[in-house]
Amino acid sequence: MKIIETVSEMRSALNTARTKTIGFVPTMGYLHEGHLSLMKRARQECDIVVISIFVNPLQFGPGEDLDRYPRDLQRDASLARDVGVDFLFHPSVDEMYPEKPLTQVKVSKITELLCGKARPGHFEGVATVVTKLFHIIMPNRAYFGLKDAQQLAVIEQMVRDLHFPVTVVPCETMRESDGLAMSSRNVYLSDEERRQAVILNQALREVKIKLQQGQFTTAAEVNQYVRDRIGSQPLARIEYVETLAYPTLDPLHTLTHEKIIIAVAVRFGSTRLIDNLLFEGRGES
Amino acid sequence: MKIIETVSEMRSALNTARTKTIGFVPTMGYLHEGHLSLMKRARQECDIVVISIFVNPLQFGPGEDLDRYPRDLQRDASLARDVGVDFLFHPSVDEMYPEKPLTQVKVSKITELLCGKARPGHFEGVATVVTKLFHIIMPNRAYFGLKDAQQLAVIEQMVRDLHFPVTVVPCETMRESDGLAMSSRNVYLSDEERRQAVILNQALREVKIKLQQGQFTTAAEVNQYVRDRIGSQPLARIEYVETLAYPTLDPLHTLTHEKIIIAVAVRFGSTRLIDNLLFEGRGES
Repeated sequence: MKIIETVSEMRSALNTARTKTIGFVPTMGYLHEGHLSLMKRARQECDIVVISIFVNPLQFGPGEDLDRYPRDLQRDASLARDVGVDFLFHPSVDEMYPEKPLTQVKVSKITELLCGKARPGHFEGVATVVTKLFHIIMPNRAYFGLKDAQQLAVIEQMVRDLHFPVTVVPCETMRESDGLAMSSRNVYLSDEERRQAVILNQALREVKIKLQQGQFTTAAEVNQYVRDRIGSQPLARIEYVETLAYPTLDPLHTLTHEKIIIAVAVRFGSTRLIDNLLFEGRGES
Repeated sequence: MKIIETVSEMRSALNTARTKTIGFVPTMGYLHEGHLSLMKRARQECDIVVISIFVNPLQFGPGEDLDRYPRDLQRDASLARDVGVDFLFHPSVDEMYPEKPLTQVKVSKITELLCGKARPGHFEGVATVVTKLFHIIMPNRAYFGLKDAQQLAVIEQMVRDLHFPVTVVPCETMRESDGLAMSSRNVYLSDEERRQAVILNQALREVKIKLQQGQFTTAAEVNQYVRDRIGSQPLARIEYVETLAYPTLDPLHTLTHEKIIIAVAVRFGSTRLIDNLLFEGRGES
């Protein structure tokens, strides 16, 4: 009998039977280039690539867009096939929730602000369904987009805290040619909303240049600048603009933290868009 | 590319690489015949047997017996070796909780009564550490004693709700020759407390006979009988006596439910003992 005291040794002692690398991309479908870029990366890095398409009711609040969330399985399957996905897991709601669940995976603190504040219960729904999907697929690597930076922080926290045997791979946000972050929800936008929506990325790109020029000292200055620029579009209703430490999401006064996120959520009509800029702060000097 | 719509098919599609069966017995150590019976069963049923010994701070409340919980790794290792255990996982608290965790696995409803009521946060601690251990060991089968019947119900609920790829195997309570349920906490008892503690099992055995004779109609009658019998011992302080549906732990009026538990928790001095009787009800007729 062998006595083992560390997690890594315990894992590798039992890991001999697992010979193939499984890469996993969880999605809610209505795939765009952002999703496909995750799948392509998984295809490069893993033996088996699995994606899931599941619009998870648990992560939608009352009055949110669960019912009208766009779906097109045939198109999605064809896109996934073309980038070399091996398995598309497409369960029904009953398959995923065969009985009324009593169990929740709850991540505290970093879920209590930004989208978590605006969408109570959202991240419990995300953490719980990702846990279930990880248990079903048992991936070695799981791919998440940086557009949902808070979601990524929550998943990475959960994976560390619960010792999931999964490597989380963050992937760059994919954008339309005018800079709008790709999102399945972009189809909701009217032509005029679509034109104005480009302001999210535009404001963040302007901030990036100004940061490089050293024009901002405090988080409040950054937030004000972004608010003013987004507010210049008449159809934009700002939900939040926040400049925080990443991935802890701690509040910041000056911009001296190692890694900083500027996160924005803006409504155009009933459509809610998010975007963010991640950058290296000036460090504590 | 294959499109899959059910959990079982998704699992078996990815399961080809896993060829050995891993059996797992999580414990807090200070092993007794109850623990060893789980290990022997795992040894019979699995290729690889892993046990963990970890006194999990998260499942102890303030003022509980975390610090004085009995420990003897050398003796435990020798006992485990003798029954053919392959790996003993014995992590430090820092190894299990390298940073302040923000993530909790929470099971609602069935954790809100019995031991969960008396020990707030206890079952969150249990569910969270068992999740971590399952992720580290990745067992096919995990063995739990029926003495902790509520814990078993919580784990089974969590495994179903979160789609853990683990079969939970409930195992009979092991008892001393006079009927006292084996527990690492029995060592806390003084000689006189130890003599009186036998009343828990004695009361439950009497109830079993009376149930077979049809002497009880309602849960309240059963509870009163057990309370009176345990109360006959001067050192016994009853924490709860409850007759409930199992494993839902729904309240019962009559004894017509399919499966019923009589669960008791009793303090002798500062020592808290639990025991239970599971039986088939008369069914709804």
